[in-house]
Order: sequence, then structure tokens, then C-alpha cells
Amino acid sequence: MSIWQEAEALKNELVARRRDLHKHPEPGWTEFRTASMVIKELQSLGYEVHYGSEVMDEASMMGLPSAEHLEKCMARAIAEGADADLVKAMAGGKTGVLAILKTGKPGKTVAFRVDMDSNDVQEDMQAGHRPYEEGFASEHPLAMHACGHDGHTTIGLAAAKLLMAHKDELAGTIKLIFQPAEEGVRGAYAMVNTGIVDDVDYMFGGHLGFKNTVDNSLVTMTGGFLATTKLDATFKGVSAHAGAAPEEGKNALLAAAQAAISLSTISRHSKGSSRINVGVMNAGTGRNVVPDIATLKLETRGLTTEINEFMVKEAKRMLQAAADLYDVKLSVSMAGSAPATTDDTELAHEIAELVKEKCGYDAIFEFADMGGSEDAGYFMERVQNNGGRASYLMYGTPIAAGHHNSHFDFNEEALWKAAATLTEMAIYFSNK
Amino acid sequence: MSIWQEAEALKNELVARRRDLHKHPEPGWTEFRTASMVIKELQSLGYEVHYGSEVMDEASMMGLPSAEHLEKCMARAIAEGADADLVKAMAGGKTGVLAILKTGKPGKTVAFRVDMDSNDVQEDMQAGHRPYEEGFASEHPLAMHACGHDGHTTIGLAAAKLLMAHKDELAGTIKLIFQPAEEGVRGAYAMVNTGIVDDVDYMFGGHLGFKNTVDNSLVTMTGGFLATTKLDATFKGVSAHAGAAPEEGKNALLAAAQAAISLSTISRHSKGSSRINVGVMNAGTGRNVVPDIATLKLETRGLTTEINEFMVKEAKRMLQAAADLYDVKLSVSMAGSAPATTDDTELAHEIAELVKEKCGYDAIFEFADMGGSEDAGYFMERVQNNGGRASYLMYGTPIAAGHHNSHFDFNEEALWKAAATLTEMAIYFSNK
Amino acid sequence: MSIWQEAEALKNELVARRRDLHKHPEPGWTEFRTASMVIKELQSLGYEVHYGSEVMDEASMMGLPSAEHLEKCMARAIAEGADADLVKAMAGGKTGVLAILKTGKPGKTVAFRVDMDSNDVQEDMQAGHRPYEEGFASEHPLAMHACGHDGHTTIGLAAAKLLMAHKDELAGTIKLIFQPAEEGVRGAYAMVNTGIVDDVDYMFGGHLGFKNTVDNSLVTMTGGFLATTKLDATFKGVSAHAGAAPEEGKNALLAAAQAAISLSTISRHSKGSSRINVGVMNAGTGRNVVPDIATLKLETRGLTTEINEFMVKEAKRMLQAAADLYDVKLSVSMAGSAPATTDDTELAHEIAELVKEKCGYDAIFEFADMGGSEDAGYFMERVQNNGGRASYLMYGTPIAAGHHNSHFDFNEEALWKAAATLTEMAIYFSNK
Amino acid sequence: MSIWQEAEALKNELVARRRDLHKHPEPGWTEFRTASMVIKELQSLGYEVHYGSEVMDEASMMGLPSAEHLEKCMARAIAEGADADLVKAMAGGKTGVLAILKTGKPGKTVAFRVDMDSNDVQEDMQAGHRPYEEGFASEHPLAMHACGHDGHTTIGLAAAKLLMAHKDELAGTIKLIFQPAEEGVRGAYAMVNTGIVDDVDYMFGGHLGFKNTVDNSLVTMTGGFLATTKLDATFKGVSAHAGAAPEEGKNALLAAAQAAISLSTISRHSKGSSRINVGVMNAGTGRNVVPDIATLKLETRGLTTEINEFMVKEAKRMLQAAADLYDVKLSVSMAGSAPATTDDTELAHEIAELVKEKCGYDAIFEFADMGGSEDAGYFMERVQNNGGRASYLMYGTPIAAGHHNSHFDFNEEALWKAAATLTEMAIYFSNK
Repeated sequence: MSIWQEAEALKNELVARRRDLHKHPEPGWTEFRTASMVIKELQSLGYEVHYGSEVMDEASMMGLPSAEHLEKCMARAIAEGADADLVKAMAGGKTGVLAILKTGKPGKTVAFRVDMDSNDVQEDMQAGHRPYEEGFASEHPLAMHACGHDGHTTIGLAAAKLLMAHKDELAGTIKLIFQPAEEGVRGAYAMVNTGIVDDVDYMFGGHLGFKNTVDNSLVTMTGGFLATTKLDATFKGVSAHAGAAPEEGKNALLAAAQAAISLSTISRHSKGSSRINVGVMNAGTGRNVVPDIATLKLETRGLTTEINEFMVKEAKRMLQAAADLYDVKLSVSMAGSAPATTDDTELAHEIAELVKEKCGYDAIFEFADMGGSEDAGYFMERVQNNGGRASYLMYGTPIAAGHHNSHFDFNEEALWKAAATLTEMAIYFSNK
Repeated sequence: MSIWQEAEALKNELVARRRDLHKHPEPGWTEFRTASMVIKELQSLGYEVHYGSEVMDEASMMGLPSAEHLEKCMARAIAEGADADLVKAMAGGKTGVLAILKTGKPGKTVAFRVDMDSNDVQEDMQAGHRPYEEGFASEHPLAMHACGHDGHTTIGLAAAKLLMAHKDELAGTIKLIFQPAEEGVRGAYAMVNTGIVDDVDYMFGGHLGFKNTVDNSLVTMTGGFLATTKLDATFKGVSAHAGAAPEEGKNALLAAAQAAISLSTISRHSKGSSRINVGVMNAGTGRNVVPDIATLKLETRGLTTEINEFMVKEAKRMLQAAADLYDVKLSVSMAGSAPATTDDTELAHEIAELVKEKCGYDAIFEFADMGGSEDAGYFMERVQNNGGRASYLMYGTPIAAGHHNSHFDFNEEALWKAAATLTEMAIYFSNK
Repeated sequence: MSIWQEAEALKNELVARRRDLHKHPEPGWTEFRTASMVIKELQSLGYEVHYGSEVMDEASMMGLPSAEHLEKCMARAIAEGADADLVKAMAGGKTGVLAILKTGKPGKTVAFRVDMDSNDVQEDMQAGHRPYEEGFASEHPLAMHACGHDGHTTIGLAAAKLLMAHKDELAGTIKLIFQPAEEGVRGAYAMVNTGIVDDVDYMFGGHLGFKNTVDNSLVTMTGGFLATTKLDATFKGVSAHAGAAPEEGKNALLAAAQAAISLSTISRHSKGSSRINVGVMNAGTGRNVVPDIATLKLETRGLTTEINEFMVKEAKRMLQAAADLYDVKLSVSMAGSAPATTDDTELAHEIAELVKEKCGYDAIFEFADMGGSEDAGYFMERVQNNGGRASYLMYGTPIAAGHHNSHFDFNEEALWKAAATLTEMAIYFSNK
Repeated sequence: MSIWQEAEALKNELVARRRDLHKHPEPGWTEFRTASMVIKELQSLGYEVHYGSEVMDEASMMGLPSAEHLEKCMARAIAEGADADLVKAMAGGKTGVLAILKTGKPGKTVAFRVDMDSNDVQEDMQAGHRPYEEGFASEHPLAMHACGHDGHTTIGLAAAKLLMAHKDELAGTIKLIFQPAEEGVRGAYAMVNTGIVDDVDYMFGGHLGFKNTVDNSLVTMTGGFLATTKLDATFKGVSAHAGAAPEEGKNALLAAAQAAISLSTISRHSKGSSRINVGVMNAGTGRNVVPDIATLKLETRGLTTEINEFMVKEAKRMLQAAADLYDVKLSVSMAGSAPATTDDTELAHEIAELVKEKCGYDAIFEFADMGGSEDAGYFMERVQNNGGRASYLMYGTPIAAGHHNSHFDFNEEALWKAAATLTEMAIYFSNK
């Protein structure tokens, strides 16, 4: 029986796992229940498992919720069956997991990264939406797996099972990385900075189908990810009565408003596309009070990491200058970040040749353009900078609605196919 | 026994009423319990009482809460003892009350206006704050009588009692006006526009002590009220993915930010002081989405109504132009408005002479400058435009903290003194 | 003797002509002397020559100097030897010239376009600058041929001579177009709109060497021209004394400053690169006067005509809205315009094959990216829209300094080579 | 014969002097001919005369023309008859003059200040304008005495003559100050900072009639001068090709435009009126170049010196922040400055009483509000700060058109009357 067929035999088990995860979505940095389950499963399969502070560099964790909120989520995870000791070990949002399989045989180190977090979306609860109709819709208000990470986690665990079953065919070392907080590109940087992929020769990420994906297909290299930086800016001024003594105020609203406008004037870049968006602004406490507080949520993007860095440098200087205009205090925090990715067309071709032989896809594409941003790029960049190679796959499946949409769903057949594919890739590349 | 002494005898009754009102503060347009109680009391005293649509011009009511919120407040008022039929008659926030006493004798029409609404302030709940210590602190979260309108309503009802007792000394007609929604200068315009003061010869408003007030004193003319206009602006654009297709968005955040800045550039006026303040701005839904919605809360002021009208004209044009800059839709609503007041120094002197003779104040001042805005100005302006005369008094009492502060409190002795003063004024001016 | 050799024999004549033109540079719309000389020469060679209103659509002429300035330039041209009647026929800046050679044989219509205008640059007058050293530097202050159009005009006339000499080898019709006002992309649109290339099958433009050009080389297709629009905006307000009555002013400076900033916030476009630049702003008359006048010179660009049109639409709306912000009057005029060009790689290859056989270049390239804008695009677009074909050549020569630089110069060997090349192309394509 | 009559006898002489000055107007810091004539005259009358570096603090001279321009003006003055040695002594614009008369008797020090500079106005050269009709219009293009300083200088010299004639009636010390560069409030500060009025007990300035002045009248105290500061700001960025590499530019135009807008958002002041005006902006070199240079001319004003200082502090911070927004360099220079003046109503009354007795005016007013700014304020402020007293007079005369208007003219009868008045004041106050 081929790995493809073995994987297909796991179908029901995978669907059940995916649906359990779908019912219990956990947004970035709160994946306590998900990660606990992942750890337990990997341990039971016989992997060496690392988690908590071992795999998360605290200083590099971006866009964390409040401590209070994290504690609420930890309590909920335990109430929903998570192991309390494991949850405690992940306190503060350190919900990343690393599983290692050392074969003892000389060979390459091959790593796969999947993401576990859900979106801040209220799932649709009406007829016509399959998760609702079939009873596995989200039980957490305002949270939903609307980007397929429930599937990605499932694929990662399914591959773990298949890989352990085929341990004898592997060489070198296999690493399975379960990352938190991909939404908002907040989690990868903290894992990469613990050095867990510094020894990796082949690094792979992947995603369940994007718009217009052909069913039962595989894309062996998804490119076009833009480098991006997410910033939160807070302006703190001095309030004053707007009628009685306006000159005593220091106007945080005007500073933030000016920042939003000035940021939009950052020059276009001749080397490629760039983006700037101030997506959210909130300021002021009352109509007749000179506003003493204002916040902005913004992001920059660039076709290359260099262009994005140009945007960030300009943005930071402008934020400070806008604060100076109105003599208010500024604090800026990094809420997320991802680099651009570098396409490896040879590797994409090599995977395609392997998959053609080993798997049953109707169609294999060697390139697709994604357009958005992905912090898997940090894993890929680190490995490529060290002389290794990397690619980001797409598991072809039609989707019921766009990513982050409340009607999102995918064809669960893609789960076992992806697991089989990753297993074949691990066998092939670890033996190179 | 003089009226001054008669009033003093009512002290305990007035304190009890004031404290009941203080425990049940009702912000602008939700004075259902307060107004019901006022109506009942005035009716029992023998006044001809008008309320609801009779005294509120619906089209002139500014800055209303949502219908849903109004209904909740109506239910609460009934739960707290208000007459359900009266509450129903005031549905939609029509919580103004007018009491008329026709003496049948020839004479002048004299009107007094008091205000009933509370502030959106969370009362201090700690030792040192007398309402808390003595058990009459607000029972409504985030609402507090922090501007003394509980006292004003009490003064109005106490004067009603004294006036009815001295009916024989009066001439002409006496009108007692209980106005909702003074905070935000939202309520007066709607009462004035029903014509209820069109026949008035003498119009009086008043307020419990301002900063630095001397205890047991009276100010017979408080001036310096600035004309003001409160505007709410909503910008509606088109959202788009900030990375994938920014050019498809129409950016409401940038339009509103630009409006805030442009408004602040309205020229100074050579004829006197002016003000502009954008106090609150909220915009956008997510960091990576071109923002399609933004709101501003703003106000203009002017030393004269003419200067304020200059500010409003400029502001409205600029709001529209800022919307046009980013091709977004604009809607602007009037959230409040008050005219400047015209000082009548002769009348102030006449009142001072009367009060010196009839009342027991330690100090009487013929002028004080307030600095803020008051929609009592609409009543005064209408009467003055018709050839009548008007003044705004200040009932001198030390205050525990500034108006709208969570520690606000006043000396309750001022209540009966003010009631006596208004009664003497009614007798004097109705017989002129 | 090959055409290549025949052309080489003209070298001294061409150098003399180029140097005469270099000494008498005429900026856009003032090419009265240049065009007069061109007309005379073409007539003497036996061409059917059209000029003035016949070849210039008045309504489409953009960015004209003042009538007064045009008259001065006409007088100067006559003083420098131009035919007074011809100059008069070109009054108002109608300085374009069209020469037609009808062979009477069936064949294609092949057109070449050269440009004649100089730059607003003060030529370097120091040792080390060859035109100065060899005595042919500009005699017109603040004007210089710093973009090689003196060479282009020379090439056009040299080709005219060779073509007439090889008339028997030609078929169909040959059109030679001498365009004014290419700088600022102002002149092509007016010539195209008279219909003079509506019957053309093959349309060619060309330019003397760009940065990094290899000597004795040819590029058969220069692409990457951005669509562009040049706009002049004038804001007219009302002045007022800034101390005594600022509210009576309508501030044109603030309107223009806001326009400059708002224009810079036009959204990036996901379909390709765009540009916006406000290059010049002048406003106000005195420090203590509310400014009543302001002018902006700006330009937009786009990778495609569609993107540029998006930029122009946004820009025009924003200019009007910025004027509305400050209640000032706006007038906008088109100061120049060029479309993007469409690459014809097959035609580039065909020319390359021809030139390899017929000419003596060391290197031939089938593509180079220019980056700037060229209104030759209007000729090419019109011909391509009618089913014809078009390309823009680059005549490889090192340059002494960048285009529009006061040290600009080129290798005059390129002149005869270009003339030979165009002649070979005319023979080849007219016979297709 | 009274001083009033003596002065009247000088009428023809004064008219001749005024007309000579009117024909030779010298704008601020270029009063070489005027000051030379003043020095010669004062010396011939027997005064101790100081000029050049003795009376001008170089570091405090604001808004100077270029060195090149100053030299041209020096040459012109000599060509028009000025003493070359004196002109040389005033090189660099040090055109102030101080004349001292020590009586040797105990008494007060009384100082008078007049101003000598002309305006940058082209005088009207048509029938109906008296200076043109009577042949004494300006012979200097773009310069005109349109603010009466030709008259002020004449009055100062006439008073010098009368004072010397009445030396015996004087006591203490008399100081006559002839100030350059009053226009733009640039010159007074430099004279005051040499300490020349540090010993003064009574300080007087004055001006020929303002709008609506009654003929043959005197105002003994002109108040309402606003404190003001004039700033020049230059922004220096980096140019770049707007199409090819916009990101390499540092945009000075956007920085200056933003500064103009931000400055206009400086908060209104609750303590009194304030003003901000950016009157002139020039930026950029070409449409397709990211602008690397921009300049602003601006001014602030305040009802009090404190309010103006608030404006200046805000303005300077905002200019720097606007430069920082676009990463450009900023330089700011002080182009002028004047303090607010403090009214001395007692002194005004004392002068009025004196004048009523001694002079033949039809009307005497003890106060008039000017509205503008005057750097005589620096002299007055210094004397008042040292315990002395000061007032600013107005010599009532109808004017043919507003100050700074090309039709400006006044009734020359006012000249001798003013001289008589100052003489009487010197006798009276020096003997106090």
C-alpha cells in the first residue's frame, strides 16, 4: 500500500480532528487547548517534543493580547479538556510546539511548519454553511477557523503519524513545527529566534487552497509574499477644556490624524510595489475636551524586504515627527512582521517531479502568486540564509468563501493528500 | 414670616428631594423618572401642566440617543416608580415639562427655566465624597448629577410651591419650564420652537455655584456664554484589501483625519474669540483594510452668535471638501447648539436691588463671567428678540469639585435660598 | 557603395548641421528657426511639405508659452536667419513639419518622427565641455540642446536626403515628421490629432543614447515608457490683512499646500507602478497678507495608460476639493501628456535581423527599458490602434553627462549611422 | 512768539525736506542717503551725534537684505549726494542715528524716536496723486514713502531745530533717535540693545494720521499694538527624478506645505487674540523633480507679548517637526519682531493737558486703537521696565489712501504742528 493510500485510510480520523479544532478556535497566542492536544499526540507518537519557553523567544513575540485575556483563555482551554500542566507551561502565550525525530542515520534535516491559530471572525450560523449544518461550527464567539489553520494542524499531526510509521525510510532529522499567531504575522519570528531551524536543510510551509484553486491539485511553490510590518502607535497628550483653555491642551487627535495623512505620503519606490495603510484610528474622550489620547493601527508592505524596510523607516520617523508637531508623547510597538520570500524554482520543480510520481493529484503547478503576507517567510529566510532551501506549498481545494470570511470552508479530502505529500517529501529530501 | 423664612422651613423636604434625584440621575433625553415626578408634583400643586409633544418640537431635538436606548431608560424609570402613562407620553425623549399659573390679574408673564438632566460621569464611591458617605450616591452606573441639575429641579419645584402659596401677590402669568438635555446644549431649542416663551416678558435661568463662588451669595447676571454648535460627522467610504487592491478603496479614515486638521485651520476672527475642537474620532475596522467608516464629534464656539456662525459655515464646507478629497460620502448632524447671550445690566441691577431688600444673602454681585455655553440662551434670546428682558442667575455655593467632576457636590442650603429668590422675583416682575 | 557607406560620407555635413542647431537651441513651441530650416531643406530635396495649422491641432497644443514670449522668439528666429514668411505661418507655436514622399508604387506607408526642441538649461561654459571648447555652445541664455534633439533633427534631415536618393527602391509612401515641444510631452498630441499618421502602417521614433549605452550600437525597441500627465493648477482666493481681518481672506496658499499633500496620498495601484509629483509651488504676495494666489506644477505617471488615468482622475478631484476646503477658485490646465507604449517584440526582432545584415553596428539589442515618458507614444498608439505597428529605437552612443544636464554631449558618429538605419528600414518596410 | 508759531514759520523748509525725502525713498536698512543727511543736519545744529556700530547691535539686526544689495544702495546714496565717509561708517545697514543734547541742568532724560525707512511699493504715477502732480514722486522704482516716514524724519529734524533754539528752557538730557527698518519691525531691537535708552525717563514715539483721523488733531496715546514675530524658514531636502527614483528624494515642498498647514492649527489662546499667517511660499525647481528647496515667510501676533511668545514657541517646534516629517533640513531666521505696548493712561492725560494749553489743535484724543504692530514698542518697553514712562502719539491728518497704498499722502501742515508739540513736551517733561 502506497503512502498515498495509507493516508487516505486516515481520512475519517483527520476529519474528526479537524472538526474538533474547528469547534474550538483559538486566536493568536491563545492556542492553549490546540497546542496541548498537539503535544500529547506528538508525545504519544514517540517524538521528542519541545514547547513553551524552549521554542518561543519572549522578546520576539509580537502583538500579544493583555495578560488578563491570556489568563481567561488558559482557563477556558482547561475547562475544554486541555492538560492543566501543559497549559501552565505555555503561560504568557508561548503556545508553539516543536517535534523532533532523529533517525540516527546520516542525512539532511527536513522541517515542516504548520500554523494553529484562528481568526477574529464570527462564524456564520445559517443554513448553507456546512460547518453549521453538520454541527462543527465554532463554539467560541467572535472566533473562527476562517483561514484553514484547523486543517493545517491536522495535516501536521497526520504527517507526524505517517512519518513515524515510515521512520525506517527516513534519514537525518525531521522537525515538525506548530506555530502560533500566524494571523497578523506575529508568531514565526519568536520561534525562529530560538534557533530551532538553524540546522535545517529543507524547510517547507504550506496552505490550504486559495481563490480559484483547482480541486485535487498541488502548487509546489507559492511566491509573491510581500514583506510586511504591523505597527501600533499611541499618542499621549494633555487634555484641556476646549472652550476655556484650549492652549493648555496637547492635541493627540491632531497628531494621530496628521500621522495618518503623512504616512500616506511616503514616496512610491522605484524598485517595486509598496503599501501603507492606517487601518484603525481611535482618539479623544469628549467633544469639548482637547483630546489627550489617540491610537493608530497600521501596516507597511513591500515587494522586497528592502522596500518594506524603507517604508518602516519612513513611517517611524513620520510618527515621531507628527507627535512632535503637537508636542505629544509617542509609543510605537511592533504588532507583527514578515519578510518577503525568495522563490526557489529548481526546488519547486524537484518537488513537482517527486509528487507526479508518488501522489495522485490531477494537476500540479510549479508556481502561484499569493499577494498577501506570511510569516513562514521567517523560517524560509533563515534556512536560505544558512545555505538551505525552502518552498511554500499550496494544497489545492476549492473554498466556500474567501479567507477570513465567515462562510469559509474547504474540501476535507485535501487533508490526507497533503499529509501523504509531506511524508513523501520528507523521505525524499532527508535522503538527499 | 417672610418668604425667605418660609423657604428655609422647606429645607428638609428640599434636601430629601434633591437626594432622591441624585440617586437616580438621568442623562439628556432620558429624564423619564425625573419628569414624571415633576409633572405629578406640579399637578398636585394645582398648575396647568404640559409635557411630551406639546412642549417639544421633534424636529428641533438634537443629539438623541438610539431608540433602543430610550426604551431601556423608559423601562428603568417605570421600574423605579415612574408613572407608566406619563413615561409613555414622553416616549422618544420628549421629557420637557411646562407648568402655567394664570393669576387672572393683569400683569407681566414671568418665566423660569430649570434643567433636569445628569452627566455621563461615574460617581466617586469613596470616603470623603459626601453623597457616597451619606448614602445618596448615584445608583445608575456611568451617570451622575455632577452639574447640580438635581438641585435645579428641586429649586424649580420649591419655587412652584412657594408661588402657589403666594398666588394672591402675583399678577399676570407665571411659567415654570423644566428642560431636558442641557448637557451638550441639546434640549432648549426644541422647547423654544414650540413657542412656549413667545409671550414671556421676563425670562430667568440660573445655576448653582461656579468655581470660586462665595457661599450665601447671589449673582444677578451671569454673562460671557459663548455661542456654540455641536456637530457629528460620519464619513462612509468603500473598504478594500490594503495589500491586494488599495486603489479600490475610498478611505474614510483619511477623509476624517483631514477634516480634523483642516477644521483646526479655520481663520481666527478679528471681532472676538472663537473655538474649534474635534474631540473624538473613530475610524476603520482592521489594520489591513482600507477604512470605510469614520466618525467625528466636534464643536465650534464664538464670542458672538455671528462669530459662531462663521465657524459653522467654514466647518460644514470643510467637512464636505474633506469627504470630496477621498470621494467618500458625508453626513453631518447637529448634536447641540446654543446662542451667545446678551447682557442686560439694568435688569441685573434691578434684581440686585430687589434681593438686597428681600433676601438674606451675605453678598450680591451684578455680574460674573461663565466662559462656557448654556442653551438657556435660546429662551433668553427669544424673549429679548420679542422685546422682553432676560437674565441668568448664579446661586452662590462652594462646590466640592469642578462641574462634571466625579467629586462634585454643593451646599444644600443654597436650595431654599434660590427658591425664595425666584419667588420674590416673580412677585416683583409680574406686577411691573 | 552601401547606404551605410553613403551615410558615412555625409558625416561632415551632418556635424555642421547639428552644431548650427546646437548653437541656436529653441525650447518647446519656439522652434521657429529650426523648423524654418527644416522646411527649406525638405522642400529643396523635393518633398511635399506641410506645416503650421495644417499639421498642428490648436486645441491640442499643451503648455504653450505666453503670446508675448512667442513673438519675441519669432523675432529672434528671423534675426538669426529664418525665413520671415515661414515663421509667420508658424505663429502661435505651430512649429511642426510633415514631409511626404509618395513613390506612386503600391506599398506600405512608413513614418519616422523626430523632435526638434531644446531644454531650459544653461549650457556649461567651461573647459572640459566639448561644445564650449569647439565653439558650438548655445548662444541662447538658459536654453541648451541637452537631450540630443539637435541630433534627432539632423538625423531626420539626413534620412530625408538618403531616402530621396533611393526613391526608386522605396514603395508606398514615406512620411517624415518633425515634432515640436517633446520636452514636457506637449507637442505630439497636437500633431496626431490632425490625422497625419492615420494612414501609417509602420511608425518609428528614436533617441540618441541613454545612460550606459554601448557605442556603435542599436536598440531596436525601447520600452517601459510610463504614461504621464502634466497639470498646472492655479488657486485664486481673496487677500486680507492677516492681523486686522484674517477672517475676510480666502487662503489660496493653504489650499495649494493642502492639494500638494493630499495628492501625495493618492493610493498606490495594485496593477503596477504609479507616480505623483508636485514639483513647483509658488504662493502669496507678502508676509502679513492672507495669500490670494497660488500655483502648482505637477505630474502623474502610470505603468499603463489606465493607471495614469486613475491618478489623473484622483488628482483632479483632489485639486478641486482642496480649493473647496478654503473656498478659493481653481483652474487646471493640461501642460503635457503622453501615453504608455506597447512593446512589439516581433517587430523589434525583425528590425534587428534587417540591421544585422545591412549595417555595421558592433552590438544590436532587441530591448531596453527607458523609465521616463515620451510623447512619441501618441504616434505609436494611434498607428497600433489602427492595426499598424510601431517601435522606438535607441541610437547607441556614449553621452558626456545625463540628459538635461548642462554637460550633455554625444558621439556625432551616431548621426550618420542612424540616418542609414532609418533609410534601410524605410526601404524594407515600405516594400513589405 | 509761541513755539507753535515758530514751528509754523518753518513750514516751507519742512515741506521741502519732506519732499526731498519722498523723492528718494530708502527701504529698511538702506537709509544711507537719509541718515547721512540727518547726521549732517544734527551735527550742524550742534548735537552730539552717534551712528553706525555705536547705535546698532549687529547681532540684533533682523531681516537684512543681501550684502550685495546693501552695497548697491550705498553706491546709489553717494551718487545722490550722500557723504561717502558717513555712508561707509554705516556699511552693513547700520543706518541708525542718535543725537544727544545735554543741558547741564538737573532734569529728566526725554527721548523721541522717529523712523526713516520707506516701503516696497511702486508709487502711483497718474494724475490725481499729489506727489506725482507736484513733482516729488519717488525716483526709486518699487520704493515709496507710503507710510509717512519721510514726514516722521522731517518732524524729528524740525524738533531738533526748535529744541536747540529753546535749549535754555530745557533741563536734563534730550535724545533724538532716528531708527531704520521699522517696516517689518526689524530695526528697533538692534538700537535698544545698544543701551541707548537705558537712562531715559520719558520715551515718545509717534505716527502721522491713521484712517479716519480728524485733521488738526492729536492723539496722546495710541495703543492696541499687537506683539509680533516675523520668521523666515528655509527647508533643504534632496532632489531626485520624480519618475525614476522618487524614493531617493527628500521632499522640501511637502515639508513646507505641511508646515504652513500645521502652523494654521496652532490652538487659539483663551487669554486674548492671536494670529498666524504664512504669507509667502516658494518651492521646487521643476515639475518632474522631487523638490529640494522651499521657503516660507510667516508671522505670528498676540494681544500680549506672552500670547505671541506662545505662538512663536509652537511655530518653531512645528517648523522643525514638519522638516522632520520629510527628513529635510530646516533653518529659521528672525525677520522682525515687536512687543505689545503697555498703555499709560495717566501720561496720556498729562500730555493732553499740556497740549491743550500750548498748541492750537482742534481736537485732542487721549486714546486710539491701532491694531497693527510697531517696534517703537521695544523702546517703550525698555524704558517702562526701567521705571520710566512712555507713550506713542498720533499726529492727526487726513490721508489720501491707506498706509502702504500707492496713493498714500498726508496734509503737510501736520509736520510743523508735530514738531511744536514734541518741543513743548521736551520742555515740560525734562523739567519734571
